[in-house]
Formats: sequence, C-alpha cells, structure tokens
Amino acid sequence: MDEKKSVVLQEEFDFQVPFYDLDGIQMVWHGNYVKYMEDAREKFGKKYGFEYLFIFNSGYLAPVADMHIKYRNSARISDVLTMKITYIPTRSAKMVFEYLLTRKSDNAIIIEAQTTQLFVSRSGEFEVSNPDFYADWKKRWNLI
Amino acid sequence: MDEKKSVVLQEEFDFQVPFYDLDGIQMVWHGNYVKYMEDAREKFGKKYGFEYLFIFNSGYLAPVADMHIKYRNSARISDVLTMKITYIPTRSAKMVFEYLLTRKSDNAIIIEAQTTQLFVSRSGEFEVSNPDFYADWKKRWNLI
Amino acid sequence: MDEKKSVVLQEEFDFQVPFYDLDGIQMVWHGNYVKYMEDAREKFGKKYGFEYLFIFNSGYLAPVADMHIKYRNSARISDVLTMKITYIPTRSAKMVFEYLLTRKSDNAIIIEAQTTQLFVSRSGEFEVSNPDFYADWKKRWNLI
Amino acid sequence: MDEKKSVVLQEEFDFQVPFYDLDGIQMVWHGNYVKYMEDAREKFGKKYGFEYLFIFNSGYLAPVADMHIKYRNSARISDVLTMKITYIPTRSAKMVFEYLLTRKSDNAIIIEAQTTQLFVSRSGEFEVSNPDFYADWKKRWNLI
Repeated sequence: MDEKKSVVLQEEFDFQVPFYDLDGIQMVWHGNYVKYMEDAREKFGKKYGFEYLFIFNSGYLAPVADMHIKYRNSARISDVLTMKITYIPTRSAKMVFEYLLTRKSDNAIIIEAQTTQLFVSRSGEFEVSNPDFYADWKKRWNLI
Repeated sequence: MDEKKSVVLQEEFDFQVPFYDLDGIQMVWHGNYVKYMEDAREKFGKKYGFEYLFIFNSGYLAPVADMHIKYRNSARISDVLTMKITYIPTRSAKMVFEYLLTRKSDNAIIIEAQTTQLFVSRSGEFEVSNPDFYADWKKRWNLI
Repeated sequence: MDEKKSVVLQEEFDFQVPFYDLDGIQMVWHGNYVKYMEDAREKFGKKYGFEYLFIFNSGYLAPVADMHIKYRNSARISDVLTMKITYIPTRSAKMVFEYLLTRKSDNAIIIEAQTTQLFVSRSGEFEVSNPDFYADWKKRWNLI
Repeated sequence: MDEKKSVVLQEEFDFQVPFYDLDGIQMVWHGNYVKYMEDAREKFGKKYGFEYLFIFNSGYLAPVADMHIKYRNSARISDVLTMKITYIPTRSAKMVFEYLLTRKSDNAIIIEAQTTQLFVSRSGEFEVSNPDFYADWKKRWNLI
C-alpha cells in the first residue's frame, strides 16, 4: 500500500518593525502588514521552491485575488514580531495562505490573515485548471 | 408622526494612479489600495464632518480592526479610477465602510472592499458602547 | 530680428498630507517627500506636455540620477502644503528640476530639493546627446 | 603621550530586493532606497549602541536635515545587494553617514549617498552643541 502523508507546509521568521512603517500614533500603519505578508510568501517560496521568479519563469503571475486581515493588537517600534505562514492545500488552481503574526515578548496576536492567489498567464488569461508547474509542485510535496 | 429618513452617506472621487504605486508588472501593487481606501475615508470625513483629526480631538482613535479586499481587475498607469465609499449604518460602536473602485474608461471593477473600525480611547481602551461624539454624529445624519 | 524669450516653466499645487505618510513622531517621514516630488514632475508634465507616458512612448525612460533634499521644517498632519516645481533649462541631455515645498499657513519652507534625470533608451543605453523628442520639446517652449 | 586611534565605524549587510519595492519598469523605485538607508542606520545603531530608541530615550530626535543620493545603476528583483554604511566623524552636533550600495553578483555600484542628521530636543529645539549622550558616545568610540 502506498500511503503518502500530506505535510503541513509552513514557514516562520522573526523581524523587527522598521521606524518608517510606524504611523502617526507610533503603531505600525495597518497597510504595512500587507508587505510583511508578501515577505512571508517569498520566504515560504524560498523554503519550498516556489518563489515569485519560479512562478514568473514558468510563464505565470499569481496576483492576490482576495485578502482578509483581522487586526488584533498593534505592533510598536520596539516589538520583535513572529510571522507564521501556512499553505492551505486546495485542489483548485489557486494558492491559499494563512498568516499569524504575533509579538515575541508576550505572544499577543497582532494580525490573523488569509490571502488567495490565482494564476494568470503572461498574456493575461486566468487559469481555471492547475497549470502544470503548479500540479508538479503539489505532487512534489504530496499535496492533494 | 416624526419620520426621519436615513440618508446614504457616500463620497466619490476620481484619481490617477501614480507611477510609484505600480509594481514590477506595471500594475498597482495590491497593498497600495489600502492607501486609496484611507484617502477615501478621509474625503468622506471631510464631507460629513468626521475627519481623522475630529476623532483624535474627541479623544479617540479609530483603528481598522478588519479589512477585506476582493481584487477584480488590475489598475495600470494610464488609468483614471473612481473610488466610491459608502458608510454602512450600525448600532454598535464601530464604523463600517464599503468601497467600490472602478476604472473610469470602461467601468471595470478594480476592487470591492470593506473595513471595520473600532474606537479606542487615547489611553488604549476599546469602547464597547458608542462614544458621545460618535452618537452625536450619527444623530446629526439621522443614522440609526 | 527674431528674439524669442525663454519662459520659466513652473507648476504649483496644494495638497494635504495623508495620515499614512506620517512617521512615529507625527511628522511626514523624510522618505515620503520623494513621492511628492514625483507627483510634482507628473503635474508639471501634464501642464507642459511631458508626462511619464509621453517619454515612455517616445522610447525612453528618464531615471533619476541625482537627488538632493534639504529638510528645513517638518510637515504635520493638519498641514496644507504648497509644492512649486521649476524646470531648470540645460543644453545637455538631462532634465533638472528644483522643488520648493512650503506650508500654506505660515509659508515656512518644508524642503528645498533638486533632481537630475537622464535619458535611457528602452534597451538600456544612456543618451549622451538630446533625444529628438526632447530637443523638439525644448524648442516648443523656447528653451535653450 | 596619549594617542588614541580613531576607528572607522562601519556596518555592512546583504539583503534582497522585495517585489513591492519595484516600480513599473521592474527596477527598484528610486524613493525606496531611502528605506534601505534608514535600515542601514538602524543596523549601524545596533552594532555601535546608537539605535533610534537610544536617541529617543535620551530625550532627542535626530531628523535627517540633508540627503544626497547618486543613482549609478538600477537594482532589479533577482539582485542581492550589499549595503555599507560609514559614520563620518565630525566635531559638530550632527551625524553624517555615507552609504555605498552595490550589487553582490558584479560589484556594480547601485547608489552612493550621504545623509546629515541634526539633534532636536523633544520640545522641538535644535541643539547647536553636542548633547551629552552624543558626546559620551563619541568618547566611547574614540571619535573626535
């Protein structure tokens, strides 16, 4: 019997909030978390062989089609934050990620978020079925 | 019988995408729409007497607690965009806005979005019931 | 005798500082003025027929090669600012602009700045002599 | 004879350009280098005990008063860049830094830059003579 076990693909990293990301009330401006989430996708991509350039060189773009962020607490300048990004397996031609950003000192949740990306060919057509490079990548990691 | 009619509070404006908001594939980087949404809230605030500084001077901050953006089409450099922001009435101590961003030339939807803001006193406490200045403002516009 | 008088090409506009451009000490973060300067070049371009897309469609890019900013006073959230951009005529194949940003309420100087842009063909070559479209544009405005 | 040798205070680090810092022509937007320079000052501060929060907690701010950037080559998405920041000793009450940003693969210079920061007390007064905490810091590192 060939029983492959699906793994949870996850990446985690710490970073410190830069001064220029603060807003006028000394908290991280809420729009800047979108950058940290993109940083997370790129670090995830490096770990699992799915960087922006890999997608691009496969002939595709993976634009964000849906983004939902719940802001729980505010990050401030002295804060070291821990970002955890988790790939949510799906059969369809999209990439879904969940994000959990916490403050290292007290584990307070800063944001919880989710993004969905679709695949667009370079000529601008949305892909309804899994592009080959994505199907191959899923297989490589024993994903559904 | 005293029947007051609730109005729909709405603001609309056009703007052109600045070059520095484009990303490496010549489309507006998805995180930059968060700025346009904040611009929209500020223009709404100007029209209806609810600017950032009015809230601040009333002793409160109104941090975004929830943000959901659906990306429908990509805006490019030559595009003139139309932002429509609508206040969604609510009895609770929060502000809910809906956003519709369209391309002027062909009415294509660029994003649909929603934000929820809560009120926090300057000492950092969340307000569970409507702060006076907000209750007054609602009354002024015949909102529930 | 044909004596053409060179005009001073200049554009001026007011704007209000958005909240997301403030830093943690409630002043405009110093890097954000670079955006206002690019806004100024684009408004100048609109007035005098020299927008980004005109340059691009002529086959060129005009990257900033040198930028010098002197910060005199800090802009804050309530401030309405006046940007004045002036084209500095030059015989060479470059565009030089001077910027003066003042606070409307008291005329305090916020920044004084200068940028120099060179022309690069789309294949990436720097132009040492004036590209035709630029020479034509100079003639149109009686510039040296 | 008391001969103290002044050291060169310098910090160097590598980083990769994030996608959201690219502009519409797939190069780093020229305004984004200002962020990398601030990152460099903060890393320098960490190495030599002069972080933003140290200055702030000493009762001062150190706003940038002058910034000059020479753009030599364009950084692109695949580029790993090396930032070298050097403290330029001065007797006066200011901090001067030089920046050299190069591409790791071919040592091409991306930018050369310089910033000057002054000290402002939290009540907003510029300091003409060296604040004690700065004089002490200079002594600690045998600087003039």
